[in-house]
Amino acid sequence: SAKVMASASTGSRVSCGRDLNCVPEIADTLSAVAKLGFDFLCMPLFHPRFRREYELEPAKSRPGAQTRSDLLLCGRDWNTLIVGKLSPWIDADSEIETERRNSEAALAQELNFSAYLGLPVFMIPLKGLSNANLARVTLCDYNKRICLAVDIGPDMPSDTVIDKWLGEPIKAAILPTSIFLTNKKGFPVLSKAHQRIIFRLFKLEAQFIFTGTSRHTDKDFRSYLQYLEYLNQNRPAPNAYELFAKGYEDYLQSPLQPLMDNLESQTYEVFEKDPIKYSQYQQAVYKCLLDRVPEEQKDTNVQVLMVLGAGRGPLVNASLRAARQADRRLRVYAVEKNPNAVVTLENWRFEEWGDQVTVVSCDMREWAAPEKADIIVSELLGSFGDNELSPECLDGAQHFLKGHFSTPNDGVSIPCSYTSYLAPLSSSKLYNEVRGCRERDKDPESHFETPYVVRLHNFHQLADPKPCFTFTHPSTDMNNNRYQCLRFTVGCNSVLHGFAGYFETTLYKDVTLSKSADPDPFVLWPILFFIHQQPISISQDDDVTVRFWRCNNGKKVWYEWAVTEPSCSAIHNPAGRSYTIGL
Amino acid sequence: SAKVMASASTGSRVSCGRDLNCVPEIADTLSAVAKLGFDFLCMPLFHPRFRREYELEPAKSRPGAQTRSDLLLCGRDWNTLIVGKLSPWIDADSEIETERRNSEAALAQELNFSAYLGLPVFMIPLKGLSNANLARVTLCDYNKRICLAVDIGPDMPSDTVIDKWLGEPIKAAILPTSIFLTNKKGFPVLSKAHQRIIFRLFKLEAQFIFTGTSRHTDKDFRSYLQYLEYLNQNRPAPNAYELFAKGYEDYLQSPLQPLMDNLESQTYEVFEKDPIKYSQYQQAVYKCLLDRVPEEQKDTNVQVLMVLGAGRGPLVNASLRAARQADRRLRVYAVEKNPNAVVTLENWRFEEWGDQVTVVSCDMREWAAPEKADIIVSELLGSFGDNELSPECLDGAQHFLKGHFSTPNDGVSIPCSYTSYLAPLSSSKLYNEVRGCRERDKDPESHFETPYVVRLHNFHQLADPKPCFTFTHPSTDMNNNRYQCLRFTVGCNSVLHGFAGYFETTLYKDVTLSKSADPDPFVLWPILFFIHQQPISISQDDDVTVRFWRCNNGKKVWYEWAVTEPSCSAIHNPAGRSYTIGL
Repeated sequence: SAKVMASASTGSRVSCGRDLNCVPEIADTLSAVAKLGFDFLCMPLFHPRFRREYELEPAKSRPGAQTRSDLLLCGRDWNTLIVGKLSPWIDADSEIETERRNSEAALAQELNFSAYLGLPVFMIPLKGLSNANLARVTLCDYNKRICLAVDIGPDMPSDTVIDKWLGEPIKAAILPTSIFLTNKKGFPVLSKAHQRIIFRLFKLEAQFIFTGTSRHTDKDFRSYLQYLEYLNQNRPAPNAYELFAKGYEDYLQSPLQPLMDNLESQTYEVFEKDPIKYSQYQQAVYKCLLDRVPEEQKDTNVQVLMVLGAGRGPLVNASLRAARQADRRLRVYAVEKNPNAVVTLENWRFEEWGDQVTVVSCDMREWAAPEKADIIVSELLGSFGDNELSPECLDGAQHFLKGHFSTPNDGVSIPCSYTSYLAPLSSSKLYNEVRGCRERDKDPESHFETPYVVRLHNFHQLADPKPCFTFTHPSTDMNNNRYQCLRFTVGCNSVLHGFAGYFETTLYKDVTLSKSADPDPFVLWPILFFIHQQPISISQDDDVTVRFWRCNNGKKVWYEWAVTEPSCSAIHNPAGRSYTIGL
Repeated sequence: SAKVMASASTGSRVSCGRDLNCVPEIADTLSAVAKLGFDFLCMPLFHPRFRREYELEPAKSRPGAQTRSDLLLCGRDWNTLIVGKLSPWIDADSEIETERRNSEAALAQELNFSAYLGLPVFMIPLKGLSNANLARVTLCDYNKRICLAVDIGPDMPSDTVIDKWLGEPIKAAILPTSIFLTNKKGFPVLSKAHQRIIFRLFKLEAQFIFTGTSRHTDKDFRSYLQYLEYLNQNRPAPNAYELFAKGYEDYLQSPLQPLMDNLESQTYEVFEKDPIKYSQYQQAVYKCLLDRVPEEQKDTNVQVLMVLGAGRGPLVNASLRAARQADRRLRVYAVEKNPNAVVTLENWRFEEWGDQVTVVSCDMREWAAPEKADIIVSELLGSFGDNELSPECLDGAQHFLKGHFSTPNDGVSIPCSYTSYLAPLSSSKLYNEVRGCRERDKDPESHFETPYVVRLHNFHQLADPKPCFTFTHPSTDMNNNRYQCLRFTVGCNSVLHGFAGYFETTLYKDVTLSKSADPDPFVLWPILFFIHQQPISISQDDDVTVRFWRCNNGKKVWYEWAVTEPSCSAIHNPAGRSYTIGL
């Protein structure tokens, strides 16, 4: 079961609250609970047994205060330390009309009083399967401030069910003292299965609410908190990619447009820190050099390598390292259109590279190359592979690559191919984030027709990714428009909010950058395509079919997409009305 | 003279930077400057003598890097510690065309490189009186990120000139070492006149930039910084109202609508902390009771006092204190329409007041009072006096006040009258804040037709306030519409952004709450009315004439306003299209 909660903030320590059903004296209880180490107190705002009748005498006109005074705590305490709980007798979905009406009036009174006190959070228990009238009374559309508190019971549900719930906007977990086991020294501990879910809740920065009396009576209630903090301090260490992306979880970023915009120094700095990419590029150039230059030619055959989009130079350095590793000779052109990054490249050349490298301050599509290349090396791939227009850029540069696709001496492109992938996704959290991105001067749906780059965090991926668009280089087919129809089997009841896009690429032969690598680098910064108007409900027997188009009018490239199963969505971004990538 | 700067942040310690014109080795210089205690370094991005020609050979095609590499510092250092300075030879307003064109190209290059490095601030010196072309090249409309750095010279200008400049969005002050005097112990100090302006700059949270070589060579450069920090620690203490409003400086708030909305507990809590208001109310009730009840009736004459809009009870408490002080008897009705605040009142009654006070949960305009009142006490005044509809509320309650305006026993309203005031205002800072308030679903000008409540901070009031609308209670004239034309003599060149609104009120006879009191309570939360489309330029010989209307359609009240001198503005908020106050 679950409870609806509004939002509060957390630190790196676990934030824990104490749940009580009866608080006769509020200031003393609050300080006692704080002394035990709790960060907040959950309590009813009205007396638990004070059941109010609004339409019947004598309750209707009962004199005196309806509940205790706000003056018992200072405003700051109400605003930061108290979580209100709805009176448990209130049932806005009761089938008995007088009870329903009375519940509606009491619900409104408690919500208003909670707002009057300025409580950070108000908890509403969900009763039974239908909560339609509760949702109407509380104006419950998608909203960032509506979150879930999940009850953790003694028995764990299946992993599928857990995955599904952890894709919901969880703010807190309720831990009854009864789910704790006792270790040899008499202290409370949790089972391995419970620990695993606690670790996952830590990642979502959930708060924890302890309910029930202490069942380890010879120990202080502090021992429950200490055990949770012990788990927090001993959570599984994050991998290199998790550290790299720390702080960006569920943060919507506009995809870079490096062709239209000049990147900033710090953007290059971040991407150069990628812990895997450049060693894979070095390996690809290394293998390629060994294939192209036999041992006996190693002193005479100077391979011409052009880095197309050299940025601040990481691919030049990887190529030079590969040449030393392979003991082959290289002449390098570093082509870069951003004049600011060219300052960095010129300084590299002056300080380190010398005449082996020629820096070219030019758009690769306009460059009159002085000779043809054996190898062109580029890293023009975005989160969705082709979405930074690698196909168009490399097609435009292909004319200065050696050969005509016939002999072993033909020029090589690193990467030589790449494929985008899509997977259906459910995430109320991200859907709410996108709703908040609406811009005042744009079409009301345009923020739903723009893809976002996101470090996915609070989400549920409904099926494994499937391949979408593939491009190879060099190529005789210069038409880079594409159309793909993908069908996914979901297998659970859920709500479809959009699609996550990934990619994988073959740099050279068996050297790849793959979304299935471990640690999973290309799951790091997926792209998201949302669907607007209304998220699509999916029952477990439904399949999801989506159609994606890649379009091009000679000046711009864009994607369009539409869901056609289990129900039809609008076609998104028709004619690139909301989002295009400038050529 | 002045320099244009983009924005950076400050703490409670003074933030100081070192200005240098030549930095041969950046990392070492930065750490040396940090070791002296500076927070940032101001330096040219390109070599001071490296004057670039874009249209002439050989400079046009000179090979190699244009300036040093970004790799000499990490991204974080560029982003937080370096302030770029434009090369001093650049003059985008030069009358020599080749020089102007060359300056435009170099200016664009330096701004782009500054953006590439992600510098927090870039300083552009203003040369001469006309900077029109510089403004065009830098797209210089009103913008929050464009701020001023003022040069502090050895001689202080007049107070009028200082007032005017301190109304501009000042980010930093440049302090040449040459303006410092030397005290007996050989340390650098500033004159009293310089200290006064430094204290005013502290209030604006300005940063300070030290330029020039140390002129106290036997002392460390640290002694300049230590002196400034000494001044910071010894700045004049804030008064009670400045402390009360701390953190709200220049923060735009929507005026409260307590008639339409129920206030929150914490809003009452803040206003109850007013250090003066309730003692003035107590004094007013005290004097009124002595006037109405002669000594010989003190045990028999029970005055009926009704608090209209009792909130959480501060006026009830002030009235009860007044009765004890006057040794007179009182029967009190506390009328409040907010059911949440009624909870507080009922608890007060249960814990403290007893039967002397009757709590009435009702809108005063709808209440069927069981008897007539001798005294009605209210605090329904907003920042502009009548803007929370005190006239309409008190007119609606007047029928249960004793008498017919003829005998000395007629009922009394506390307050008995109030008057709003207006003054013309210049503030780029606040104008920018309002520009940022544009809402996506509203008329494009509506954020300029809405008044705001603001603790004024970075502004220049162009003339003394003049009285606008007056209301008295009780009254035989129930028409609360008003029209007023006010004319102000400004006496300096400036730009008119809008009008600050104040009020003063007579509670009873000589007991007032006055905007001219000391400390100045009603300058604390003035209301602002802006003018849209374009701020109005004013030369020192111009007068400013503004017309204000108070209008009413039976359901809502609103203001309209228009400037008619020195030039005509549009009529603002016609028919209440952007802002009304619900009855």
